[in-house]
Amino acid sequence: MSTYGPQIEVAIARVRADVARLHSELTRYGLVVSTGGNVSGRVPGADLFVIKPSGVDYADLAPENMILCGLDGVVIPDTPGAERSPSSDTAAHAYVYRNMADVGGVVHTHSTYATAWAARGESIPCVITAMADEFGGDIPVGPFAIIGDDSIGRGIVGILTGHRSRAVLMQNHGPFTIGKDARDAVKAAVMVEDVARTVHIARQAGELIPLPQAAIDTLFDRYQNVYGQAPQGAIL
Amino acid sequence: MSTYGPQIEVAIARVRADVARLHSELTRYGLVVSTGGNVSGRVPGADLFVIKPSGVDYADLAPENMILCGLDGVVIPDTPGAERSPSSDTAAHAYVYRNMADVGGVVHTHSTYATAWAARGESIPCVITAMADEFGGDIPVGPFAIIGDDSIGRGIVGILTGHRSRAVLMQNHGPFTIGKDARDAVKAAVMVEDVARTVHIARQAGELIPLPQAAIDTLFDRYQNVYGQAPQGAIL
Amino acid sequence: MSTYGPQIEVAIARVRADVARLHSELTRYGLVVSTGGNVSGRVPGADLFVIKPSGVDYADLAPENMILCGLDGVVIPDTPGAERSPSSDTAAHAYVYRNMADVGGVVHTHSTYATAWAARGESIPCVITAMADEFGGDIPVGPFAIIGDDSIGRGIVGILTGHRSRAVLMQNHGPFTIGKDARDAVKAAVMVEDVARTVHIARQAGELIPLPQAAIDTLFDRYQNVYGQAPQGAIL
Amino acid sequence: MSTYGPQIEVAIARVRADVARLHSELTRYGLVVSTGGNVSGRVPGADLFVIKPSGVDYADLAPENMILCGLDGVVIPDTPGAERSPSSDTAAHAYVYRNMADVGGVVHTHSTYATAWAARGESIPCVITAMADEFGGDIPVGPFAIIGDDSIGRGIVGILTGHRSRAVLMQNHGPFTIGKDARDAVKAAVMVEDVARTVHIARQAGELIPLPQAAIDTLFDRYQNVYGQAPQGAIL
Repeated sequence: MSTYGPQIEVAIARVRADVARLHSELTRYGLVVSTGGNVSGRVPGADLFVIKPSGVDYADLAPENMILCGLDGVVIPDTPGAERSPSSDTAAHAYVYRNMADVGGVVHTHSTYATAWAARGESIPCVITAMADEFGGDIPVGPFAIIGDDSIGRGIVGILTGHRSRAVLMQNHGPFTIGKDARDAVKAAVMVEDVARTVHIARQAGELIPLPQAAIDTLFDRYQNVYGQAPQGAIL
Repeated sequence: MSTYGPQIEVAIARVRADVARLHSELTRYGLVVSTGGNVSGRVPGADLFVIKPSGVDYADLAPENMILCGLDGVVIPDTPGAERSPSSDTAAHAYVYRNMADVGGVVHTHSTYATAWAARGESIPCVITAMADEFGGDIPVGPFAIIGDDSIGRGIVGILTGHRSRAVLMQNHGPFTIGKDARDAVKAAVMVEDVARTVHIARQAGELIPLPQAAIDTLFDRYQNVYGQAPQGAIL
Repeated sequence: MSTYGPQIEVAIARVRADVARLHSELTRYGLVVSTGGNVSGRVPGADLFVIKPSGVDYADLAPENMILCGLDGVVIPDTPGAERSPSSDTAAHAYVYRNMADVGGVVHTHSTYATAWAARGESIPCVITAMADEFGGDIPVGPFAIIGDDSIGRGIVGILTGHRSRAVLMQNHGPFTIGKDARDAVKAAVMVEDVARTVHIARQAGELIPLPQAAIDTLFDRYQNVYGQAPQGAIL
Repeated sequence: MSTYGPQIEVAIARVRADVARLHSELTRYGLVVSTGGNVSGRVPGADLFVIKPSGVDYADLAPENMILCGLDGVVIPDTPGAERSPSSDTAAHAYVYRNMADVGGVVHTHSTYATAWAARGESIPCVITAMADEFGGDIPVGPFAIIGDDSIGRGIVGILTGHRSRAVLMQNHGPFTIGKDARDAVKAAVMVEDVARTVHIARQAGELIPLPQAAIDTLFDRYQNVYGQAPQGAIL
C-alpha cells in the first residue's frame, strides 16, 4: 500500500514522529495556548511535508494523526490522518517549502513577546550576543497578510530569502520561523520568544547599548560554524 | 432514585465529569490561585447546570462533589455534592443561563492581565489576529457590580447579548466568559488572558497598529466557520 | 519520652506534617527560590510552634526535620530536628506568636511583586474585589528592620494588630503574612503576591479606578463570613 | 586505566555527577532555553574541572557525557565524553579557575532579567535585603567581550576579584557567577536572576528606597557566617 517506496515511507514515518513530538516543545516553553501554533517538517527526498491537524488539543497529537501534504498544500488522500483538516496555516507552510529549497521545517506561534513586537510592526534590535549567535542581526517584520491564501507565505519568503534571520514577525499576527529541519525551526521559535522578551524588558528601563556590527558578524559566523557537536551550515 | 429520567441523568453525569476536569485547565494556564475561579456547564435538555463548590482546593475537585443547581441558582437537594455550598458566583452563572439560551458554559477567573485591564475599566483593543479570530473585535468592559445578587449576572448579559465577544471584563473584578459548552467557555478564559497579556506588553513599548475592520470581520468569520475539524456555529 | 502528654504530642505531629507539606505551596506558586522563605505553625494548646530549618532545600523538608520551638524562639532540645538551626527568621515568628494570641500561622517570602512594592515602601491600593475579599483594604507597609533581634517581629505586630490585612510588606525586605493556622497564612502569602502582581501591572498602563469604601466593607464582610464551606471568623 | 590515582578519580566522579545534576536547576528556574547556559565544577585536589558539552539537550546530560578539562581549557583525552566538544564558554571557565584559586564552580546563563540589565550595561542597585545577604551590595557589570579567547575570562576575573558579589553581568551578554563549588555558583545564578527581576519590577513603578551601607554590611556578614546549618566562609 506504500505509494512512495520503502525509503520515502521510512522518511515519512520519521518526520511524522518528529513533528508530533516537537509540538511538546511549544507547550513546554509556553509559546502556545489552547490549540494554537503549528510545526511542519519536509520529507527529505520527496515533494511532501507533514503538518499538525487544525484545532486539535496538544495532548492528542501523535504521529498517526499528523497530516501528509503535497507542496501545493493539498492533503494526500488515503494516508493516516487524511480524514482531518490540516492546520489553517498549511498554505503558508506549503508556499515556504515550494519557494525555499533549503528549508526543512516551519513553525508558527502567537508567543507573547514576539507577537507584542509584531503588534507594533517593530523589528527586534540585535543588542545581545545570544541574538547575534542565533539570528545574526535584527529580527525583521513581515507585512500584514490575511490568512487563507498565499499572502502570508509570500510575506515570509519575501523577507527571509537571503536574510540571516530564521524568524520573521508577521505584523499584527506573530512569529514564523524556518530551519534546516523541524527541530531547527522549533529552536528558532523558542529563541525568538526568548530574545523578544529579554530585549523588551531591557528597553523598558532605559537605553540599550548597540552591538558593533563587526561583533555581530563574528558571533554569527562562529555560532553557525563552530558551536555544537558538528559543523552546521547556515541554511540560507 | 433518578429524578430526571435516564437520558438526563447521563447528561448530568457527563457535565459533572467535564466541569470537574476542566478546572484543571485554569490551574494549568495559571489563571487562578488558591481556591479562586469557577467553571459551570449547562445540562443539555434540562433546566439545570453543574458548578464548582465554594472554597474547595482544585486538587480535591471530582465529578461527585460538583454541585447540581436549577436555573434559579438553588442547589438541587439529595444529589451528590448537595451538602456543600456552591461557588459564591452561582447567582451570576444562573442569571446567564436563564437569559442566554445558547450559552452552555460559563467561566470566571481573576487572571492577572485580564483583571489588570478590568481595574482600569478599559476594554482590550483588537490589534492581533488571534483576537479577531477568537473574539471578533475588542473585549468589552462590564459595570462594577457587587457579588451576591443578580447585579453581576445582569452586567454580563447586558454586555454580551448580541456581542461577538465571549468575554467581558467586569470592572475592578475580572473576566467572565461564556461558550456553547463549558469547554468552549474555558477556551475563551484561556484566550482572554493570553490576548490581555500580549496587548498589554505590546502597548508598553509604543504605538499599536490598528487592525482594519474588514480584516477583523474576515478573520472572525473564517475562524467561526472553517477552523478546526468541523464547522462551529457562533454561539450568539 | 513525651514531654507534653499524648494530646499535645498528637498536635505537634500534626503541625509538623502541615508545616512541612505547606512549604510545597510556596514553590508551587513560585513565591520562593533556592532555600528562601519559611512557614511556621503554632501548636494548639501549648506555648510551642514548629518552623522550617535554616538553609535546607525544599525537596528535603519532612515532618521529622521541622524544628519545635518555644514562644521565646528557643529550640526545644531532644526533639526531632533539634540538632539543626531553625530558620533565621525564627525570632520574628516567635515575637508574633507571643504578641498575637489569635495567630496560628506565620509565613515569610521574598515573592517578586510583593517585594517590589516593599522596595519602594509603598502600600498596595485596594482596587480589585479579590483584594477586598481577602485583605479588606490596602496592604500596609512595615518599617525597615534588621534581621536577628525583635525588630522585625515588633514591626509586624505593630502594623497588623487591629488591621484587617493578614499581610504586611516589610520595607526593603518582603511580605510577612499571618493566619488562624499555617494553611491560612500560606493562603495569604499566595494572595498577596497575586494582588501585588495584578495591581502593579494594572497601574503600569494607566489610572486605576478606586473601589468605594462601602463596597470594600461589604466584600470583606461577606468573604469572612459566607465564603467557603463553613463560616470562618476573621482572626483579629 | 586511572590516570590520577583512586582519590582523584573518586573526586572526578563526584564532580561529574554534581555538574550533570545541577544543570537541571537552570531549567527548573527557567534560566536557560534550548541548549544555552553551562555549569562547571573544579575537581578538588587536581588541576582539572568538569563542564557541559556544547549544544547538547538538557534532557541528555549525564555524568558520563560531562567533559573533563585541564585548567588550560583543553579536553583530557581518553576520558568519558572526550569525543565531544566542550561548552563554547570553556575558555572563560578555565581562565577563572586558573586565576581565582578559591573558586570551585562557575555558571553562565542568558537569564532574562539579568541579561536585560546587561544589555543596558547597568549594575543592579542593592535595595532589598535578599541581595545584601547574598551579594553584599550592587551586582557589577563587566566589559563587552567576544567569545572564543580569554577576554571574557579576563573580564570576569577583573571585576570579581576582591568583590563581595559572586555574580557579574557581562555587557550585552549575560550573567556569570562563581562559588566555592558548582552548587554554590548555581545558587548565585538563581539568586541573580531573582533580584534582577525584583529590582527591575520595583523600579518600573517609582523611586526605590536605598538600603543604608551599614545595614548591607550587617546583613552580608550575618548571612555568610550564621545562615544555614554550618558556618560558610565567604569565598573571596
